[in-house]
Amino acid sequence: MHRHGGDIYTYKNVLDFSANLNFRGMPERVRQAAKEAVDDSGNYPDPDCRMLRESISVREQIPAEHIICGNGAADLIFTLVRARRPKRALLGAPTFYEYEQALVSVDCNIDRYYMQEEQGFRLEEDFTERITPETDMVFLCNPNNPTGVLTEPALLERILRRCETCGALLVVDECFNDFLKEPERYSVKKYLEETDNLFLLKAFTKMYAMAGLRLGYGLCRDSALLGEMKKCSQPWSVSLPAQMAGIAAAKDTMFALVSRDEIQAEREYLAERLRERGCRIIGSAANYIFFRGPEDFYEKCLQQGILIRDCSNYEGLSRGWYRIAVKSRRENLMLLKVMEDR
Amino acid sequence: MHRHGGDIYTYKNVLDFSANLNFRGMPERVRQAAKEAVDDSGNYPDPDCRMLRESISVREQIPAEHIICGNGAADLIFTLVRARRPKRALLGAPTFYEYEQALVSVDCNIDRYYMQEEQGFRLEEDFTERITPETDMVFLCNPNNPTGVLTEPALLERILRRCETCGALLVVDECFNDFLKEPERYSVKKYLEETDNLFLLKAFTKMYAMAGLRLGYGLCRDSALLGEMKKCSQPWSVSLPAQMAGIAAAKDTMFALVSRDEIQAEREYLAERLRERGCRIIGSAANYIFFRGPEDFYEKCLQQGILIRDCSNYEGLSRGWYRIAVKSRRENLMLLKVMEDR
Repeated sequence: MHRHGGDIYTYKNVLDFSANLNFRGMPERVRQAAKEAVDDSGNYPDPDCRMLRESISVREQIPAEHIICGNGAADLIFTLVRARRPKRALLGAPTFYEYEQALVSVDCNIDRYYMQEEQGFRLEEDFTERITPETDMVFLCNPNNPTGVLTEPALLERILRRCETCGALLVVDECFNDFLKEPERYSVKKYLEETDNLFLLKAFTKMYAMAGLRLGYGLCRDSALLGEMKKCSQPWSVSLPAQMAGIAAAKDTMFALVSRDEIQAEREYLAERLRERGCRIIGSAANYIFFRGPEDFYEKCLQQGILIRDCSNYEGLSRGWYRIAVKSRRENLMLLKVMEDR
Repeated sequence: MHRHGGDIYTYKNVLDFSANLNFRGMPERVRQAAKEAVDDSGNYPDPDCRMLRESISVREQIPAEHIICGNGAADLIFTLVRARRPKRALLGAPTFYEYEQALVSVDCNIDRYYMQEEQGFRLEEDFTERITPETDMVFLCNPNNPTGVLTEPALLERILRRCETCGALLVVDECFNDFLKEPERYSVKKYLEETDNLFLLKAFTKMYAMAGLRLGYGLCRDSALLGEMKKCSQPWSVSLPAQMAGIAAAKDTMFALVSRDEIQAEREYLAERLRERGCRIIGSAANYIFFRGPEDFYEKCLQQGILIRDCSNYEGLSRGWYRIAVKSRRENLMLLKVMEDR
């Protein structure tokens, strides 16, 4: 059975470094919007998420009719796969587990491109060659989860062009894009309005620390595909608190900018301390750090009441690889102390 | 495009009789639990809904391992259909639209049993004969939505036995069971622990007026089926506010009992007044009334700022059939006034 991050229900009262959420927590306005929505939750939510899509449209500068909302980005991954029913898909490894789970649920054949430790787990040029006319769908997580490795803009464009040539749908998961120093540079959003072969996944979950409310969204020019997605999912998939929290989050761009800078600084501090302690750090461009550390580090942390993400169960990874969220200085020091106590 | 009840987003500031929710609204304890959960929603929800399933287990007297929770009952309908992938299914008509939508999404052939107006839209004995060894799944809504017609216990048992003989899964939707005068008499729960061929759908949405939070649950002895359902849906489908509200709701049985009695009394009052005004009332055993009325009644209501459910787009129904929720006396009188003003 796959283990996920954020399992504070099995490991109670732990300090949780295993879920990649903004350590500053949910902004007060988002929290208030969700609470007010609870008062209105005697009503069904709007199946079409009209107000929410309008707010996202303003933030993303993408027409509202090219936006679809879901019960978290994971919900949209499943819905997209059911709507398109790919026979053959290409995935990197290691990467976010839900692409595979969704593809397996529709009996899709999965080609895996194993990213190599020697290449810093980067997607290389030869990824493009793995996309063939038989490929129906390509999943690409940028920055990748769990590694935080970025795929360069030029390669991204070549991958997209190859998908267009081969008739494949390129699904780019940018759920952690907002944490990057140069979000626009690494986003494929600029291609959205020129092609039907691109589906861009995003979420407010991470930046606005609202994982418990469940809200993700997809951007795509292909209205027929969005229509198919609506047909194969229930009408009321996005709860009223999630819709209202999402509207508040979409408007609060300042929170995202301030968080990004603060997390970047704190990440550099934490990464440097880990390096000093002999850890090998890879990628880690977003709000989490991916590293090779002591083989017993997960257990040692748990003994001290700290939960980290043991990445050994990711396809393409072995024992000794970990992912930790960047948290506040005080919390980060507690984690570092576990390493010193060894 | 299918029209649903509860669309207060297209028709703003209306008095909504089109969604079948308890007019007493969300109980204060449920509301508080959901709001407190918003404060904790910086964390992911428990994918296994352990505390929630424990609470439902106590209320339903069904082992927690035979309970699965979803993002509303509609979510579970889709997940169940995806997990089982029926080739042929039997449905009554008219009935809740989401069974059909889910079945169509997996290319299932649908046999329809048309309930007849002359028989008061009842499911008759010959329904059993329509279940054959080719039938993979049978959906039965009891009391039925939109008619509120009950299927008698003896027939229910014969349908279940026939499903067992034919190897079909009987899915009984009892989302409105709690509103009945004799809920136990009409529930198939008593058969749950003796057969793998029964899946029972329930929700707190209607009784606890928490439609905006999204929470439904399924009861089934077949652990393999529940396992398949988990495999073909995302891990975090039930939000934290929904889980916490559900726990509070599961404990508050008194609210359900008091509501039931109050709604039954108010329903009889409202039904009698509609009859006096020449409407033909059918079934209506739960918290809504199904009736044939003036052909322009939907439009007349809307002109007065009242939204009712025009049922003409249900398979098996024609113009002139309506469904209204039973609301408070004051609100019910407002609806009756529209009829008098004609």
